[in-house]
Amino acid sequence: MVGVKSIPSPAISADDRSHEVDHPSSLVAHFGIEQPLSLDCGVDLTPFQIAYQTYGELNADRSNAVLICHALTGDQHVANVHPVTGKPGWWETLVGQGRPLDPDRYFIICSNVIGGCMGSTGPASINPATGKVWGLEFPVITIPDMVRAQAMLIDRLGIDTLFAVVGGSMGGMQVLQWTAAYPERVFSALAIACSTRHSAQNIAFHELGRQAVMADPDWHNGGYADRGIHPHRGLAVARMAAHITYLSDAALHRKFGRRMQDRDLPTFSFDADFQVESYLRYQGSSFVERFDANAYLYLTRAMDYFDIAADHGGVLAKAFADIQTRFCVVSFTSDWLFPTSESRALVHALNASGARVSFAEIETDRGHDAFLLDVPEFFDISRAFLQSAGKARGLNGGGG
Amino acid sequence: MVGVKSIPSPAISADDRSHEVDHPSSLVAHFGIEQPLSLDCGVDLTPFQIAYQTYGELNADRSNAVLICHALTGDQHVANVHPVTGKPGWWETLVGQGRPLDPDRYFIICSNVIGGCMGSTGPASINPATGKVWGLEFPVITIPDMVRAQAMLIDRLGIDTLFAVVGGSMGGMQVLQWTAAYPERVFSALAIACSTRHSAQNIAFHELGRQAVMADPDWHNGGYADRGIHPHRGLAVARMAAHITYLSDAALHRKFGRRMQDRDLPTFSFDADFQVESYLRYQGSSFVERFDANAYLYLTRAMDYFDIAADHGGVLAKAFADIQTRFCVVSFTSDWLFPTSESRALVHALNASGARVSFAEIETDRGHDAFLLDVPEFFDISRAFLQSAGKARGLNGGGG
Repeated sequence: MVGVKSIPSPAISADDRSHEVDHPSSLVAHFGIEQPLSLDCGVDLTPFQIAYQTYGELNADRSNAVLICHALTGDQHVANVHPVTGKPGWWETLVGQGRPLDPDRYFIICSNVIGGCMGSTGPASINPATGKVWGLEFPVITIPDMVRAQAMLIDRLGIDTLFAVVGGSMGGMQVLQWTAAYPERVFSALAIACSTRHSAQNIAFHELGRQAVMADPDWHNGGYADRGIHPHRGLAVARMAAHITYLSDAALHRKFGRRMQDRDLPTFSFDADFQVESYLRYQGSSFVERFDANAYLYLTRAMDYFDIAADHGGVLAKAFADIQTRFCVVSFTSDWLFPTSESRALVHALNASGARVSFAEIETDRGHDAFLLDVPEFFDISRAFLQSAGKARGLNGGGG
Repeated sequence: MVGVKSIPSPAISADDRSHEVDHPSSLVAHFGIEQPLSLDCGVDLTPFQIAYQTYGELNADRSNAVLICHALTGDQHVANVHPVTGKPGWWETLVGQGRPLDPDRYFIICSNVIGGCMGSTGPASINPATGKVWGLEFPVITIPDMVRAQAMLIDRLGIDTLFAVVGGSMGGMQVLQWTAAYPERVFSALAIACSTRHSAQNIAFHELGRQAVMADPDWHNGGYADRGIHPHRGLAVARMAAHITYLSDAALHRKFGRRMQDRDLPTFSFDADFQVESYLRYQGSSFVERFDANAYLYLTRAMDYFDIAADHGGVLAKAFADIQTRFCVVSFTSDWLFPTSESRALVHALNASGARVSFAEIETDRGHDAFLLDVPEFFDISRAFLQSAGKARGLNGGGG
């Protein structure tokens, strides 16, 4: 068995974000020139590295490995203190002792996606050919590229079949891509708040974010790193736009309504009079401390390009022909970014493929972000699905 | 009767946008120091001017005047060629011979709002006290301020009671404010795709747009005019964000889907691969040719502050107590910016006030923008409402 353990990561200064890019506070798998990553754009990326965290231990059968795929602005720090922000892991609601994904039962892996900025090779990394930051010289990557890189990591860890692949939003896209590309390597798949393709509205919001970054003169056509600067204003605006799409109208109303910030009367100015304004400004400014602007461009682009059906002659069901993987598809009623209709289309395609699939639309007003929040029904469904799959997989202790 | 006629306006260069601010291709009403505009923020604005267009003639009874209130980025050029863009008027679908608002029957007035940039006094105007552009020295204005200025214009035109006040979006807010502030001066009110207050999500999108403008270094804390520049990149991003909210997911899907722009395969770059990207970029860049960035800040702020109920002890129905105005409230099923639920809340309040109100929710996938588009059901409803009100008002020729 692979005795890989997660490294406890103390909180470090936000100034050290750039340090994480090439020297992450994580385990790192290096892939040399003998193992290039073959990208959809036609480029062989080599050398490259994948930064990852693990929780729990791989069992003797190597049958209890769970791969978690992170979302657009997530990273591998699922269930440990984040090395840059000092905050708890982003999915400690789902992953941890007594949680649906319990490291006492599963060997849980999460890697930073290719194109990211937390230790896997991406536009913020040093290009070994030049000794300089890649910037826009980095090849454009896709969701299939991310999954191809993850498969190389799983090979490296000596794992043939993953017990489960789990993820929400862009993570859910990777889950679906795993099942389409490597059906025999995925015993069960939990795809949350996602879709098999990005809609026109999704693309529009991403393009808005990219234009906000590119409008910042500090972006310098992607070459800001050499100048020791960062287009933080543009990136903050992009984050604000995205953040609105992660919440529902109802959630914003419940959380903030028209309540004022530390005052009773309007200031008749452009100060943040309303609580929702302060909240958004905070979301924007805190994000730029931990994320790279070019990585944001690359990852949003990858999501925009994603369209599983297009890769299978326009017929989604063909992507899942004869698949043995057990699926659980979860959507949230108030998610308008990846609405239930998208999940239903996926479930219909899986049904048409004869796949084993369960589907849950969870009633909540919390919007797309619900998959990251404390939503008991979501945990119950995830737990039940994983337990049932675990039983079928012959994992010890069907309870948990 | 007032023999005011609209001035035919030839298309002029986009460079002349700033000329329109103080010397509009419109009629102008000047208000000197003896007639200040008393603003909600406590400032008396003086002197100031209102630029307006008219269509048709005021009848001998002065009973056929219709005031159209424009939306956030609209202006007074309802039904004539726009002096900056050279494009047709923005509401020629509704206003014109044979249209529901026919200048052969009505004397139609539309004025640029206070705070705007097409000839009514606003942050882009010259501050007579300094000889320089107002910029952020301009006082923050509200929807009630806009309506107060319009009432002064209507007085100037010798009109006591308006046959109708008509508007959509921010224009609809002004319609409602007219009925709350001057119920006896409004015979009928057609309020379209609007609400009595801005929601948290509405405020969030506006704050996003403001932050995009303010993030542009060319904004210079509002002082760009003195430097002969304009924060066009930030304003274009703001416009892109707003534009997404004007369209529905379904409309974007129908118009663009995932279709590529002049190509079959992705470029694996940050070019506008998808049609929806090119479209948004065009919306952003064309907007900045005709709109002032500071005016955008002021008008979005005015909408955010709008909350009729708050001005009436939190009870919306009190705003319309004993009102005699005939109301028609229109919403569109796919409008997620001002959803039908907001119109319903308004109708309930009007019912509670004993007001005469008809309500139509129009089935369309075109989103908020539907009020500007060719939606026959909307025209039919508007025509029927105006005809019925015209009959009650004793206007000649109930048909039309």
